[in-house]
Amino acid sequence: MTLLDRAKRGDIPDEIVQIAKNEQRSVEFVFERFREGKIVALGNNNRPRKIETLGVGEGLSTKVNANLGTSRDKEDLDFELRKLKAAVDAGVHTVMDLSTGGDLYSIRDRIIAESPVHIGTVPIYDVSVSTVDKGKGMIHMSPEDIFETIETHGKQGVDFVTVHCGVTQKIVEQIIKGERITGIVSRGGSFLAEWIHYNERENPLYEQYDRLLDIARRYEMTLSLGDGLRPGCLADATDRLQIGELVVLGELVQRAQEAGVQVMVEGPGHVPLDQVTDNMRIQKEICRGAPFYVLGPIVTDIAPGYDHITSAIGGAIAASTGADFLCYVTSAEHLALPSEEAVAQGVYVARIAAHAADIVKKVPGAIEWDNKMARARADLDWKAQRELAINPELASKIREETKPSDEDVCSMCGEFCAIKKIGEIRTIKK
Amino acid sequence: MTLLDRAKRGDIPDEIVQIAKNEQRSVEFVFERFREGKIVALGNNNRPRKIETLGVGEGLSTKVNANLGTSRDKEDLDFELRKLKAAVDAGVHTVMDLSTGGDLYSIRDRIIAESPVHIGTVPIYDVSVSTVDKGKGMIHMSPEDIFETIETHGKQGVDFVTVHCGVTQKIVEQIIKGERITGIVSRGGSFLAEWIHYNERENPLYEQYDRLLDIARRYEMTLSLGDGLRPGCLADATDRLQIGELVVLGELVQRAQEAGVQVMVEGPGHVPLDQVTDNMRIQKEICRGAPFYVLGPIVTDIAPGYDHITSAIGGAIAASTGADFLCYVTSAEHLALPSEEAVAQGVYVARIAAHAADIVKKVPGAIEWDNKMARARADLDWKAQRELAINPELASKIREETKPSDEDVCSMCGEFCAIKKIGEIRTIKK
Repeated sequence: MTLLDRAKRGDIPDEIVQIAKNEQRSVEFVFERFREGKIVALGNNNRPRKIETLGVGEGLSTKVNANLGTSRDKEDLDFELRKLKAAVDAGVHTVMDLSTGGDLYSIRDRIIAESPVHIGTVPIYDVSVSTVDKGKGMIHMSPEDIFETIETHGKQGVDFVTVHCGVTQKIVEQIIKGERITGIVSRGGSFLAEWIHYNERENPLYEQYDRLLDIARRYEMTLSLGDGLRPGCLADATDRLQIGELVVLGELVQRAQEAGVQVMVEGPGHVPLDQVTDNMRIQKEICRGAPFYVLGPIVTDIAPGYDHITSAIGGAIAASTGADFLCYVTSAEHLALPSEEAVAQGVYVARIAAHAADIVKKVPGAIEWDNKMARARADLDWKAQRELAINPELASKIREETKPSDEDVCSMCGEFCAIKKIGEIRTIKK
Repeated sequence: MTLLDRAKRGDIPDEIVQIAKNEQRSVEFVFERFREGKIVALGNNNRPRKIETLGVGEGLSTKVNANLGTSRDKEDLDFELRKLKAAVDAGVHTVMDLSTGGDLYSIRDRIIAESPVHIGTVPIYDVSVSTVDKGKGMIHMSPEDIFETIETHGKQGVDFVTVHCGVTQKIVEQIIKGERITGIVSRGGSFLAEWIHYNERENPLYEQYDRLLDIARRYEMTLSLGDGLRPGCLADATDRLQIGELVVLGELVQRAQEAGVQVMVEGPGHVPLDQVTDNMRIQKEICRGAPFYVLGPIVTDIAPGYDHITSAIGGAIAASTGADFLCYVTSAEHLALPSEEAVAQGVYVARIAAHAADIVKKVPGAIEWDNKMARARADLDWKAQRELAINPELASKIREETKPSDEDVCSMCGEFCAIKKIGEIRTIKK
């Protein structure tokens, strides 16, 4: 029996109790939403290294994921492990191994072994790369390969898998004819689209969805329904292709939940600022309130080098109006594989967006953090300000680089510090 | 006669025609809003160096300001001039000289002479610092000093001045008793509050507002009504003090406009994400649609070192729902005086927020920039992507640091580039 099967019978799994404790919510609060599929409890039952279940969904704090992974141009496991450490040190909640270069099985095994946080993967990368490694075109991968690979990921202990089940044959034919500027920008989506178009067959992940559900059940592996048709530029946002895929995903959410499989849904992408909230609401409506996991959204296309920031803008709005899980975007997005530093900064910035949203969502403990910082500022207590900063090292470094002569204040206003002055005003004796 | 006097008579000043041209709007569009006080045309008539008038307000592109200025701890004019250059190179629209250290008259004179963009100041800093320099407490500055200093700034060619006219005696007494965590965080606001409280007198900028209007008229200097009571933390946001001051500013906006003086209003500050839009709407209602100039807003207090980002989140939302002018916040905010690099990055990030909002506001040319970038990405045209990037040098640097072996793509996906694949799919012959 899966956790969801048990919840439907009225059992409260220990995992739910533990999530409730970590999130400062009542067990009833979490249990009710878990049973309805509005919260997922991440944790493969075959994990070699046991870690606490992670709750993602309605009413819980917004979670942040960092993507790692080798590429053909950089097959360096040590580099990936250093990025894993950088992400974890910066406070990431989960990591996805998106490797496409080197021995993918071993890389994944090592990352799962080393990681103190939950791991996601995109098995279709593995299938496609292995097919190419065998000297064949991706179009020659077999449905059997796909399901066996997903099973392997489950066996290895992967906690959630992105599966692009909504990239149906009908949608692929539309996109090939279509008028989008950037077509498909999802790697997994493009691999499947090529396969579907060449073989003139339906997407196996859609056609044999029940087989996928069986594998997911076996390992308590959460399905993350990928958005293969997510917009790759503002002009393509919220179009018929994107929403068409979302409608398919909505059906698949229901089938997963009915089969006792935990499921979340992935979302855009590149979205103009004023369409972000609508996208969140539409997803929640269509997908029965399933947790929403978004990449960005990036609110402008013109800022390569700053896409950790363009995505923080979109991510903060998204998380405050429905998204439960933010996939970070690094400053290297659209340009290169990120460095360790870009990974760390990407995590911090996504956490800032998540926290700004958690304040609005009234997540327990969120505004209290800000209020402590506000009091430390009012008290000119620099030690407390440092400790309360999301990145204490960075805050210290900036302060130390341009030191004030008066240690009470900072070098911006010096003796003309407004906060110092208001304290003095209150002591004026007349 | 001021520009506004002329507009009221039905004359269309050349400045309005020029703004319309620069903003790709019709002359009627700009003129109507200018006459109603919804657009200001920045440009002191006594500027030693002539530059094009800058339009700020409804329907125009969102403008970005960078604050510069010496402090007691760092009285280095060359450093300020380097920061000016950094801000201008990064595409800033205006600069405020907030110096409080050194010979303030000469510093201002030099900045005005060197700057290719419009200049704002906060004359009360100058008055307060000069009083302290004479060995007296700030509480001893005279109303005469204040108005003479503002006149001096006008004569020197300052294009807009922040004047905290809404910090009334009544509000000061409330704040001293009050329950705010961070009290006053506006330097100008705190200087005036001390003066008002000690001297038990009304704020001269409020009491003798007509005198201020006379000076502003003389130099076609735009008044920027300062928000001395802006919240310094999320908990203090949108409270009675902040809104009380805004109500006073609303009255003063009307008086300025009736006197033929151009006026804009300054706004918060630290504001939770879900209160940003409400703040914009309230201001526009209360202040007759006058241009709104906001500092941030910062959407969380816990991220010193990242406040260029926390303010980009708030600024993008603000500008998309009413703000016309964003004052940048740098990564050094709350910690230190910013470096040249922090100034440059602060400008870029504020421009990104402004642009994300301009897309939503349907500012002419805004989405077209994104669409060009989208097409360059779809075409894997890296030269065009570089040229279209808001910061081409940074984009190139990141790409070059981790070069792909295949020059068509980037090192993140390499040969598995989705964009490349969709192009290939379209050419599959069956």
